[in-house]
Order: sequence, then C-alpha cells, then structure tokens
Amino acid sequence: MTAQVKFPQFLPWTAIRIERGFWGERQSINREHTIPAVYHQSKITGRLDAWNPENAHHPVTHIFWDSDTAKWIEAVGYSVATHPNPEFERQVDQVVDWMEQVQLADGYANSHFIAVEPEKRWRNLRDQHELYCAGHLIEAAIVYAQATGKRKLLDILCRYADHIAAAFGRHEGQKRGYCGHPELELALMRLYDATGEKRYFELSKYFVDERGHEPHYFDQEALERGENPRDFWARSYHYCQAHEPIRDQTEVVGHSVRASYLYAGAAAIALESGDEELVKVLHHLWDDLTQRQMYITGGVGSAHTIEGFSFPFDLPNATAYSETCSSIALVYWGQRMFRLDPDSRYIDIMERALYNCILSGVSYDGTLFFQCNPLESYPNASPYDRLDRLSGTTYHRRLEWFDVSCCPPNLARFVASVGTYFYSTTQERVYVHLYNQNRATLSIGGGSIELEQETNYPWDGEVRIHLAAARPIRFALALRIPRWCREFHLKVNDQVVFSQPEHGYVVIEREWQNGDEVMLSLDMPIERIAAHPNIRQDVGCIALQRGPIIYCLEEADNGAGLPHVIIPRSSLLSYEFDVALFGGVGTIRGEAVRSEPVNWRSELYEPRSNVEFTQKPFTFKAIPYCFWANRQPGEMRVWIRDS
Amino acid sequence: MTAQVKFPQFLPWTAIRIERGFWGERQSINREHTIPAVYHQSKITGRLDAWNPENAHHPVTHIFWDSDTAKWIEAVGYSVATHPNPEFERQVDQVVDWMEQVQLADGYANSHFIAVEPEKRWRNLRDQHELYCAGHLIEAAIVYAQATGKRKLLDILCRYADHIAAAFGRHEGQKRGYCGHPELELALMRLYDATGEKRYFELSKYFVDERGHEPHYFDQEALERGENPRDFWARSYHYCQAHEPIRDQTEVVGHSVRASYLYAGAAAIALESGDEELVKVLHHLWDDLTQRQMYITGGVGSAHTIEGFSFPFDLPNATAYSETCSSIALVYWGQRMFRLDPDSRYIDIMERALYNCILSGVSYDGTLFFQCNPLESYPNASPYDRLDRLSGTTYHRRLEWFDVSCCPPNLARFVASVGTYFYSTTQERVYVHLYNQNRATLSIGGGSIELEQETNYPWDGEVRIHLAAARPIRFALALRIPRWCREFHLKVNDQVVFSQPEHGYVVIEREWQNGDEVMLSLDMPIERIAAHPNIRQDVGCIALQRGPIIYCLEEADNGAGLPHVIIPRSSLLSYEFDVALFGGVGTIRGEAVRSEPVNWRSELYEPRSNVEFTQKPFTFKAIPYCFWANRQPGEMRVWIRDS
Repeated sequence: MTAQVKFPQFLPWTAIRIERGFWGERQSINREHTIPAVYHQSKITGRLDAWNPENAHHPVTHIFWDSDTAKWIEAVGYSVATHPNPEFERQVDQVVDWMEQVQLADGYANSHFIAVEPEKRWRNLRDQHELYCAGHLIEAAIVYAQATGKRKLLDILCRYADHIAAAFGRHEGQKRGYCGHPELELALMRLYDATGEKRYFELSKYFVDERGHEPHYFDQEALERGENPRDFWARSYHYCQAHEPIRDQTEVVGHSVRASYLYAGAAAIALESGDEELVKVLHHLWDDLTQRQMYITGGVGSAHTIEGFSFPFDLPNATAYSETCSSIALVYWGQRMFRLDPDSRYIDIMERALYNCILSGVSYDGTLFFQCNPLESYPNASPYDRLDRLSGTTYHRRLEWFDVSCCPPNLARFVASVGTYFYSTTQERVYVHLYNQNRATLSIGGGSIELEQETNYPWDGEVRIHLAAARPIRFALALRIPRWCREFHLKVNDQVVFSQPEHGYVVIEREWQNGDEVMLSLDMPIERIAAHPNIRQDVGCIALQRGPIIYCLEEADNGAGLPHVIIPRSSLLSYEFDVALFGGVGTIRGEAVRSEPVNWRSELYEPRSNVEFTQKPFTFKAIPYCFWANRQPGEMRVWIRDS
Repeated sequence: MTAQVKFPQFLPWTAIRIERGFWGERQSINREHTIPAVYHQSKITGRLDAWNPENAHHPVTHIFWDSDTAKWIEAVGYSVATHPNPEFERQVDQVVDWMEQVQLADGYANSHFIAVEPEKRWRNLRDQHELYCAGHLIEAAIVYAQATGKRKLLDILCRYADHIAAAFGRHEGQKRGYCGHPELELALMRLYDATGEKRYFELSKYFVDERGHEPHYFDQEALERGENPRDFWARSYHYCQAHEPIRDQTEVVGHSVRASYLYAGAAAIALESGDEELVKVLHHLWDDLTQRQMYITGGVGSAHTIEGFSFPFDLPNATAYSETCSSIALVYWGQRMFRLDPDSRYIDIMERALYNCILSGVSYDGTLFFQCNPLESYPNASPYDRLDRLSGTTYHRRLEWFDVSCCPPNLARFVASVGTYFYSTTQERVYVHLYNQNRATLSIGGGSIELEQETNYPWDGEVRIHLAAARPIRFALALRIPRWCREFHLKVNDQVVFSQPEHGYVVIEREWQNGDEVMLSLDMPIERIAAHPNIRQDVGCIALQRGPIIYCLEEADNGAGLPHVIIPRSSLLSYEFDVALFGGVGTIRGEAVRSEPVNWRSELYEPRSNVEFTQKPFTFKAIPYCFWANRQPGEMRVWIRDS
C-alpha cells in the first residue's frame, strides 16, 4: 500500500455509474458517437495499423500517433466497465495483439520509432514525444486491465516501463534525460498505484527532479545530433517547462498542456513522498495559473505561437488558444491538488473547466471537435489568421479530426471517466464534489455505502442524495458548496440543517442509516460576472453565468454585430429552459441594446459628431458556451459590453 | 519623353528645399542622426563590406542586405542634394567603387549571390529577393546620380538592368519569372523616367503582367530545385501577390509591403501605357485597402504571421503589424494613383500615413526604429508574444536595428525625400498637396515661379504662400483642403476668395504676379473619431485627431490602466502646444474618467454586483501618436473608450 492513504482518495471509476441527467447524456453520446468516431479516424488515418506487423514498415506514421491510440483505448476501458461493448473490446484487442508482436525484445514499444526511424530512438527527447507516448499507453493499459481484466496490454507496458527505467536515470550508462512533453510522470504514478511497484514511483520522481538541471540534457542531446541547441524552434525550454528545475519555478509558463501534465505528475509524487517543498511550489503555480492566466471558461493558454501561456492577465478572447487538452490536464492537476489540500477551490476550477471549456471541445452530437476554444468568434477571425482563410475556414468550426489530433481522443476518455471526479473519501469522510444523477458505492468507516444522487443539475440546484447501507455507519458527509452559490439550504430526512461550509464543504457528521436522505438546495441565480481589472480584453464587459455554466451570445439567436450589443445593468435577466435546444438546455434572456451607427458611409473613420448612433432595444438569448457552434456558423461572444 | 506628360507631375525632389517647421526639424534629425545611424549599423553588421572585393567570400551576408544598402545610398542622395555632405558621399563612393569591382562581367550585381551562393543565382525567385535588391539599387543609383552628378552607380545598375532584361522574359532561353517580393517594377519605371530607355518600361510591364499566370513560375522553379511547391512556408502565393494575375485581383491580400510596391509599380505602368483595365483594378484595390484594411494611423497589415493583411475590418490594435515600410509603400502607391486620378483622396491617405504611422517608425532623436507600429501597448504585450518576453522585451520599444532591417533605411530615404510630395504640376495648374515651410521652384505655363510657404502646420492651419515670378503667368493654383478640415478661409493678396473645392482642391485661376500672396486658413478643431462599425476592435471607442495628427494616451502622462479610461462625450477638449515636449508639439487635454473596480480580490472573476466601481475624474493629456514610446516605457492607447 502506498503512502497516499492519509490523503482523500478519489472514488475508483469502476465504482460509479451515471445513467441520466446532464452527464448521462454526454456519456451516452460519447459511447455512441465519440468513441466510434475516434476509432474510425484512428483507423482511416493509419494510427491503428501503424502497429500491424504486416505494416511494420508502413511509411506514414507520426511521432505521437501512439498517444492518440492510447487515449482511445483508455476511453474504451472506462466505457465498457459500465456499458459492455464486445465490438469496442475486439477493436482494442486487435491492436494489443499487434503491439505484443511488434514490441521489441528489450521492451521498447513505439510504433513510429520501431517501424520508421529506428536509428532515432531516444535521440531527441526534446521533440520526439517517445516518453509522452509511453505515458499515455501506460494509462490506457491500467484502465483497460481494470475494466476488462485483460492484462496483456498492461504486461506490455510494464515491460516498456522497465525498459525506460533501465535506460534513464543517474546511474552509469543511463541517459539523464526526460521528455520534452511531460505526461509519463503522471502515468508512472498511476502505474505505481495500480501495481504497488515502488520502482515506478522512483522513476517518475527521477523524471520530475532531473528536469531543467544544468548541464541541460536537451543541449547535450542536440550536440550529439550535431545540432546547435540554440536552433530549438521554440527558442526556449520554457516551452517544455524545462527552463529550470520545478522547485525553482515561480510562474506558469510555456505550453499549457505540458505544464499541467507535469504539475499533475509532480503533485502525485508529492502525495507519495510528502515533499513539502514541492507542495509549496505547486500551490504557488496553481495560484499563478488560476488567478492570473485562466479564462472564465476554465480554458488556459492564450498564445497560439507556443500553444500556451503568454503573460499574466493576457487573455485575448478571439485568439484564445485555450486547448481542450489543457483544460483536461488542468482537471488532472486539480484532482491531485485537492488530495494534497482538501479544499473546494480545486474542484471549483475543475467544475468550471469541465462544464465550459472541455465540453466546448466536442460538438453536441459527439462527432466534431475543437482543439482551440475561443471566447469570441467572427467571420474570418480564425485563430490561424489569413492563412486559414485561404484554406476556406471563415468561421471557427469543429472538425472531424486534426493533423495533430490530441484533443478528440482526450475528450473521449475524459467524458467516459467523468464519474471519477464525483467523490473522494478518507477513513471518516465522504466528499461529494460534483452533482449529477449517479449511483456510487463507497468504502467508509470500515463498511460500505451506496449513494444515489437525483438532480437536474446544472439546470437547477436541487440535489437529493439517497443513502443505502447494510448497517448504520458513522462518518462525515461533506457536500461541496460551489463558489458561485451565495445561499444554500440543507435538509437531512426533511430536517433543516444549519451549517457553514469549511474549506468549501458543508459537513454533516452523524451515524448514517439505510434510507437516509439529504436534500441540498443550491441557489442558482443568474450572475453578471466582471473580470479582474488587469485583464484588459474584458474591461467594460460582463459575462453571464448561472450555476457552473458560462453563457454566450450567438449570432443564431441574436443576429450579427455582437460587439455592438450592450446588456444594461438595469435590464432584468430571466432563466428559461429551452426543451427544444440540444435536448433541453438552460438559456438566459433579457433586454439588451444594440448601440450602432446608422447609415455609415464607406470611409473607415468618421468624426463621431457626424455619426448618428441608434440604441435599438431587443431581447437577447444566451446559450451555454459549451454548446456554441452547433448551429449555423456565426458570431459568438462570451464577454458582452456592460452599460 | 514618356507618355506620362498628360498626367500631373510631382515636383522633382531637387526643386524643393525645406528648412524649418515640422518637416524641417524631422529632416535635420534625419541628416544628423538617422542617416549616420543607418550607415553605422550597415557598417558594423557587414552590409557595406559585403561588397568589398577583399571580403568577397565573407561568409556572413544576407540575401537582402543589398536593399538596405541601397536605401541608405538613396537617403544620402536626397540629403546631399540640399545639404552637401562630403563625408556621406565618401562613404557611398567607397561602396560604389567596390560594387564596380565586384559586379560580374555579365552585369549581375548581388553581393550575397556573388560571394556566398553563386550556384543559387536566379534559382529561387519566390524567396531570394534578388530582383527586389536590384530594384532598390536602381532607385538608389538614379537618386545618387541626380543628386551628385556621379553616374558610376547608375551605369552599374543600367548594366544590371540590361542583364535582367536579357535573363527574364517570354523569349526563347529566358526565364519567365518575376520576384516574390515586388519592388523592381517600380524601380524600372523610375529608371525609364530617368533614362528615357523604353526597354525598362517594357521589362517592368513584363514583370507585372507575367505575375501569377499558370503554369506558375514558382511551382516550376521549386520543382527544378527538387522541392515540392506545396512546401512553400507561407502556404499560398497570396503572400507575394502571385496567386493570380493582377488584372484578376479584387482584394488586397498577402504581405503588405509587397502588395503596395507592386501596385505602385503597376500604377506607374498604367501612367505610361494608358491601360484602362489596369487603372480600374488599381482603383478597386486602393478602395479595398483604404476602406476596409487600414488603421487610422495610415498603418496597413494586421497579421504578424504573414506581415500583412488578414481580412476586411480586422484591425487589432495591440498586435497590429502595421509595418513602417508598408505605410511608406502606400505613399508610393498613392502618389501614382493621384497622377492617374487627380483627386485629394490619395493625398489625404498619404498625409495620414506620413504624420502618423511612418513617423512612429523612428524615435524623436532619429536613432531608434520600429518595424511594427501598434496602436495599443501594454507591459509584455509585445507583438511577438511570450517568446519575446523571454528575451526581455516587456514593452514595445524601438530598437537600433533588426535582423531584417528594412524599415530604418527606408525611413531615412523617405524623410529625406518628403519634399517630393508637396507639389504637382500640369501645364496649367500647380497642385499644393502638403503644408510646411518650404521654397520650391516650379515650371508652369512655359515659365518658372518660386513658391514659398510659411506655416506652423500641422500645429495650426494658417498657411501663407508667397509667389515670386520673373513675369506674370496665368495658371491655376490648386490648394488641397484636407478631408479632416470642415471649414477654410482663403485670401489672395488680402482679398477674400470664395470657392468650393473640386476633387479636394480649391482652385484659384488667375494671372499670378511677382509678390502675390495667398493666405489659406484651415480650421483645425479637435475631432473625436469613430471607426467603421465593422471594425470590432474599436467598437465603443473614439480616437482623437486634430489636423492630420492622430493622438494617443501614454502612461507617462496619464498613469497605467488605460483600458479603464473613458473620455465622456460631454467633456471639453482643449488643444495646448507643449513647448517643452519633443521640441514643441501639440497636445490635447480634457476631462476623462477612470472607471475601475476598487479593492479587487485575488480571484480573476467576480460577480459584478460584488464589485464597486469608482469613477475617478482626471485631466488626461494626449500626445501625437508619432511621438509615442519616446519617454519611459508604459502603456499606450490610440482608441479610448467613449461614454
């Protein structure tokens, strides 16, 4: 047993089942459409056949295809555990059989560097993503084994992990390297949890600790390749969080997915090692990211040039990078931060990311994807600029797949695994983090209970929790009161309970009986949200939020010219559940004004005094941001001008 | 004599002398600081020594260094014509002597491709800028010969032009190519004007006409180099205006400097050939650029990715590319458009560019330069993003020089030649386009007159024009009434003249006598300017303009947090000449409000209702945009929130 038992444990994903409600529907679409779509694209692009021994010299592979395949396998694992699907398993098993045949005798297992460029193996850790791919395959192997009981993939990956452990480290004959794209650190900690093998923890810790030290490994390997280290295209190792050792870092920089994967891995190590220095650094970095560099949607990474962070409070809306994968990575990091520091603030961010930026990454029907999730969109205002317009993309639209297609399979596995984030337990406490219909079995106080949630969350704040237990058990039930909620009401078996939240959770400690029922009622008014005054892009604007959902205005409902729309402070806003839209979603309506010049001539610039502005009142309709771009193409804005 | 005599001629730059006033000071700083700084940088970077036969195998040259050297020589030419400077001439003559020695026997004259990569000569017209460099050298040679009477450089360049004429064209054995970076077209037309040799016109016309035809020359030469044409880094020939023949073009696209140089060259051809189809295309493209894609400063090109145009009405302020060179190129184009279509609208744009974007390209002291001229600046908001921050640039600052340093020498030659744009003549008319103290000698009505302007323009609108003539001459004096001027008063010899402008010029036709004096008084109120409603980046904002000058707010005068500043519609604005600032400049003061939340907590997003906004009134001070970034680093904004 690992040292982490003293920290809250998240519920094993096998112990929760979501059938209905908001996430029930998202998971059903994920099973029926997204996972098959990811399989289909992986198949037709050659990702799966890259492992086929008959195609072992297939020339068209890509250095990080294996990571996509891995995420698809992981998605299948989560999904079949609750919803058996022999066809999904057959598809995975075929690839696993191939992997077994293709894996080298020394344990090395990367489809590209086995088939296409064997001479380049481990020669460019900075750019080539080999360890990153290994990490994703390890996560897939763990989940697939736990879901199906089939160990073949896990055995392959344990051999690969052992090969990596032999190749990298501080001993004679080992390379003192680490991956340019962190991920393996996190995966090895999951492998340690799954197998109890301490060497995987040690290897992960080595990768985190070694990173960024001088003499710099990326310099050395570049010189060994006969390259000038200064010719690194990204100009600086900040890009891969290798500019300095993690313990010296004070600011979140570089590529946003790489950053959050690294910090999640480091948090997992801190959970095991109890390394207070590392915990302090991670706290600081978490605050830096979430208090200076995060979009209201939970998106992170504002700069396209490096797919990552630009500088504090620089959060451009139309050109936001805000990659789906980086919000997913933020959830992984937040989950581990909560364990280190059981406070709802990590879950608040997690909830913000999952209802907004992450879900924006997939179309309502589950088959189309965004890598980038801007908060504003106009014709031609593609984040890729003119260049994209030449290729015909005149609006931000989701696509079936991408050349670098990390986000679609990441979404598939994330949505399939969302139950993981609902509960945590310690020996005497059950944390309820998220609200949605679900049934979960939890070990607590030496016994076992079953919890069932009934709720229409996030469309309303009424949550009914039903307890089933073979015998009465004393424990504390800690219910998260989201930060957006200003008032809540709580009843246990119809008796009103008065309690103030501690660390964001209202705690009811008692001997719980079979049949007990908790009614939590979270006030969910519509809120106008203002942004930090240092975020220059949002000055003079508000965003609309209700519960965890961030809303946006779309041209489909409000016409074009959204920059001219003002929502006066005095205007009444009303919530309306639109049963006809996307299977039923909450919408916000209210009086707005379109403040626009009339009869503008052809010149670009005119004296203000020559221009007549009209103030046309109209009733606006805002829809959840996560469902934007599912109707005809058009403008979209999250931040709307305030009066 | 060329066919162009039927169109208005711009005054030869040798015929005007500016001693005082706004441009007198800019030219004096240009002579005393900018031209020497450009020489110094050209020297220390090796640009000049690239021609030294002793260094003929100097390994460090760059494919378009010659263009920088050429622009410096051209600047020296303009400057020594009115302000003799033997040292300047000695510096140029040294390089010219080297060029004469290094030029190949067949006439080829490019320092890089002679010394470093002779095997690559004319092998990659798309990228290698050889014809572009030739064009700039030709312009330099013409000006230097006219200024000094020294023909050596012109002879070198005529030989080179003849070599180019032999190498390129539609005859057997010739390459049907043209340059990826237009410029030579314009230069050859100047060479035709200077020499009367029709073959230079024919060659220029060939380059303009051939461009963009299929089978595409850039495809063919790429295949000949063994490259896939689709691997072109810029993805599309739109980047170099070679996506289709110019006559088929309906929209200004691609790299903004390349675009305007090409259109200027094409306009010069149309002046000679009378090609009505080409004139129609150029009119359309001019309107497209100036009515859909131009900043209020006369800057053009909003996208860094391609140093050029993104899409209509996309004019981001903080990330504007707005290259100094492209506004200069716009002036060249506008100058030729005026000749084709004598209307002040071209000169209005020219004036907008030269008082705002172009002058922003150089520091007040003449030694530091911007390539990009954003309309908004914040700490860290470098157009180059995070990457630049890592290299320490946290504010937009002018630099001494650049790796690609096209703008500094372009500024040097442009400022030295600004007198060129003051007057045009036909056989019976004198156009006065620009206002500044100057003395000019013009041929008109078979005689000659001398005009002298006295004015404090652009700080006030009073212009006194003094005529000296050996004998009375009948002609029309056409004085430009700038589009920003709503009311003007005109007197001839103290007699009020009532007249309405035609095509933007008020025309006084009479027999002019020695000693006649014209007093033009242009009303110059402070204007709040609104932007076209389709420019989403400027919605809800105004810019301040007085006369041709666009103003900006800087942190140095107004404190930080400029996005929170509102200039209410009701606030009175006053003009104040600040004698202490930059040798005396106009400023605008008025009441503004800083609308800002107080006591913001650490979170990024807060309910609007929790936030208290203060409305702090203060007196703002706006300075001319062209002088921004000359004091301590800080925020800057041109577009300010309107109430």
